[in-house]
Amino acid sequence: MPFDTPSSTSDRPHVVIVGAGFAGLEAAKTLRDAPVRVTLVDRNNYHKFQPLLYEVAMAGLEPDDIAHNVRNIFQGNETVNFRLGTVVDIDPARQQVHLHGSQSLSYDHLILAAGAVSTDFGIPGVEEHAYPLKNVPDAVNLRNRVLRQFERYDRQRAAAGEGALTFVVVGGGPTGVEMAGAFVELFDTLNDDFAQFDTREEARCLLLEMEDDLLPPYKAPQRAYTRQVLEARGVDVQTNTAVERVAPDRVHLADGRVLPTQTLVWAAGVKASPVANLLDAEQDRADRVVVSPDLTVPEHPDVYVVGDMAAIEGEDGYEPQLAQVAIQSGRHAADQIQRRLRDATTERFEYWDLGQMATIGRNAAVAEFAGGIAFRGFMAWFLWVVIHIAKLVGFRNRLSALVNWAYNYFTYNRSARLILDAVPLSDDGPMEGEAEGEQVTERPQTVGPQP
Amino acid sequence: MPFDTPSSTSDRPHVVIVGAGFAGLEAAKTLRDAPVRVTLVDRNNYHKFQPLLYEVAMAGLEPDDIAHNVRNIFQGNETVNFRLGTVVDIDPARQQVHLHGSQSLSYDHLILAAGAVSTDFGIPGVEEHAYPLKNVPDAVNLRNRVLRQFERYDRQRAAAGEGALTFVVVGGGPTGVEMAGAFVELFDTLNDDFAQFDTREEARCLLLEMEDDLLPPYKAPQRAYTRQVLEARGVDVQTNTAVERVAPDRVHLADGRVLPTQTLVWAAGVKASPVANLLDAEQDRADRVVVSPDLTVPEHPDVYVVGDMAAIEGEDGYEPQLAQVAIQSGRHAADQIQRRLRDATTERFEYWDLGQMATIGRNAAVAEFAGGIAFRGFMAWFLWVVIHIAKLVGFRNRLSALVNWAYNYFTYNRSARLILDAVPLSDDGPMEGEAEGEQVTERPQTVGPQP
Repeated sequence: MPFDTPSSTSDRPHVVIVGAGFAGLEAAKTLRDAPVRVTLVDRNNYHKFQPLLYEVAMAGLEPDDIAHNVRNIFQGNETVNFRLGTVVDIDPARQQVHLHGSQSLSYDHLILAAGAVSTDFGIPGVEEHAYPLKNVPDAVNLRNRVLRQFERYDRQRAAAGEGALTFVVVGGGPTGVEMAGAFVELFDTLNDDFAQFDTREEARCLLLEMEDDLLPPYKAPQRAYTRQVLEARGVDVQTNTAVERVAPDRVHLADGRVLPTQTLVWAAGVKASPVANLLDAEQDRADRVVVSPDLTVPEHPDVYVVGDMAAIEGEDGYEPQLAQVAIQSGRHAADQIQRRLRDATTERFEYWDLGQMATIGRNAAVAEFAGGIAFRGFMAWFLWVVIHIAKLVGFRNRLSALVNWAYNYFTYNRSARLILDAVPLSDDGPMEGEAEGEQVTERPQTVGPQP
Repeated sequence: MPFDTPSSTSDRPHVVIVGAGFAGLEAAKTLRDAPVRVTLVDRNNYHKFQPLLYEVAMAGLEPDDIAHNVRNIFQGNETVNFRLGTVVDIDPARQQVHLHGSQSLSYDHLILAAGAVSTDFGIPGVEEHAYPLKNVPDAVNLRNRVLRQFERYDRQRAAAGEGALTFVVVGGGPTGVEMAGAFVELFDTLNDDFAQFDTREEARCLLLEMEDDLLPPYKAPQRAYTRQVLEARGVDVQTNTAVERVAPDRVHLADGRVLPTQTLVWAAGVKASPVANLLDAEQDRADRVVVSPDLTVPEHPDVYVVGDMAAIEGEDGYEPQLAQVAIQSGRHAADQIQRRLRDATTERFEYWDLGQMATIGRNAAVAEFAGGIAFRGFMAWFLWVVIHIAKLVGFRNRLSALVNWAYNYFTYNRSARLILDAVPLSDDGPMEGEAEGEQVTERPQTVGPQP
């Protein structure tokens, strides 16, 4: 059933944007006053601030600190409409996007900004046993797991098994570094919670990286500083270390070693969202759609691919999968649509590299800006905090996140230490779950007596 | 395997408290400096502020605003230890509590404060199709459901089916009244989110009560005011209306009428936690354990039952299941244990009735205090807000809750409008789930690509 907007905007060209991450949201914001009507589609009803997802996993922030209702962002705007839905097919010839539940959207212009998903590189056991960190539920799930491991160990040390408090983070990129740094801070915090053992002595965090250094895109002084800080804070950093297989209670390394661990966080790599596979277009090794310089798909000038889903040719190969690339490419696609509406030719996308920053933990971060300016330590961390709070502008959550952060900073605490019970799977069919074949519960699962 | 605390407190009498709700928490706090060692057991690692659970369900507050990590409350205290666990059996003769996972706790004194659970009074379909509101996951689940119903309706009105936006609340007690009042406020808020229909016109809330008036324990002027305010705000209040059967898309009433609804909230009644059935003791109709005047179980002077689990003889029958009764009875049990330690006789529990209050919504509440002082309207509401914020003292969440409330008040908004995806069931066995026979997932459920 085609979709019609019964409003004054219904005769305008229809722009469909798939994905309400950084790229899709920026595209929609850019078009909010344009002479078009926009349908912004996402599987979730919220935009998430991905760079702080690890803080939710490490009990520093709550989900609502980093997630914002999309409809709320466009309240009062007649141009942009939100649609909760999962894309199951794309028909560029007929200019249609098919959503789960036999619905379709006809478009005049399509922006695909469905982001990236975790990839296991085919390593056995990762999908079954490792904890990814791409979505809010991933973060809540990992938080539950970590806190439960401490409860288990406290209850019956022997029964908890070997590696109960060994937390392995795989992947030495920004996410892995942030996670590892946050893990050791969490061990500190939890030490006040558990009187019967020293969490700082008993819990361990290992950070495994296949290459020979952490944070590969950074320059040597920042990389060295990162490793030094992590090690000084108690993280066991192991570079040149590849994972061969993951089991529920251990990880097998390529060099033959076996590490007992019951909680392995997979921060080793991403590939484009499966939405990228729905186009009959060229893709790179990470499934990204190889786009033309104006970010359209070759042979489909009305289809733009932006953000983490797009392989955008830059000066040194494809542009990296960063928030800034996503935001700028989302804006560029929206701008090109407006140019086409005035019959102007499209322009080449050029990424304006503002620099990059990664936090290692309290008072420690690395930052590199254009012009070769680099910061390490407190100053970089302070900048990181300021910039990330500034980025949360528009979130009503800003104040609440600031409160949580300030509280954590001054009390050395991590306030969000709730093990949230299972929330039942969606009762709304596969729309909000896996695209297909997912088993969904029929009714709310009641949560029985306490305790 | 018996539990031993390897600390300086290990030779002290061992008090086991089951349940970290109002009653159990108060008992533990009362004993925090006593010459005992306390093990506080709960199925969850947090204490929840039950009176505001409905605000989580109605997107006004987030789970962490009303839930507080129990270990955090007793940080630095050597007397009180927390244990995450589910009670599966009690052996008063051997003074043992058995927890899930073949663990047991030996006690010298036992305080049972496991609270109450929702009861369906044997009405068919309630367990399968109605939404209870006793736990944090219940609240998140109901919030997801309500928000999804609006998304569904917005997407394809016809396919959403009859009653898609009809929300039926069953039970005219404080929870039902609060829920109904919050529903119509939510319809207001959501109207800014949905441009294509008027949520205030299309959505309905019905409040069904079996008896002939709302808030039966209140005096007539307060009851009349409550009904008048709810009706003025658009709630369809139906008293003398009993539910006969609940189906997924409708509710059958005892008078033969059938109301189409896809979301029925069950706030009609509670019974004692199944933990009450583990004692071989007299129970009332609602499964509560009938206790002696000192709150012990007859024939088991070392077992106290307090809070919603206890049938405590008062002036007019058993005391009501209110937070104040729970707090005072929890404190009383802890006091009696201390008296027994000094070889004093136990004292009779006397409930000091401070009064009661219920909110109907923005600027409207009813309150009755000792001495016949009653308030209705803004003043009662203001008192309600002040008292509830004061009660959150000790919660780090206080400030955050205040921020959320203030935000809602001044913007007529409800900020927590996130549909949180399914979080996988516990991977920790049935401990945090149903006591027995529950199917638990083996591994975290990954949440697939977005959108």
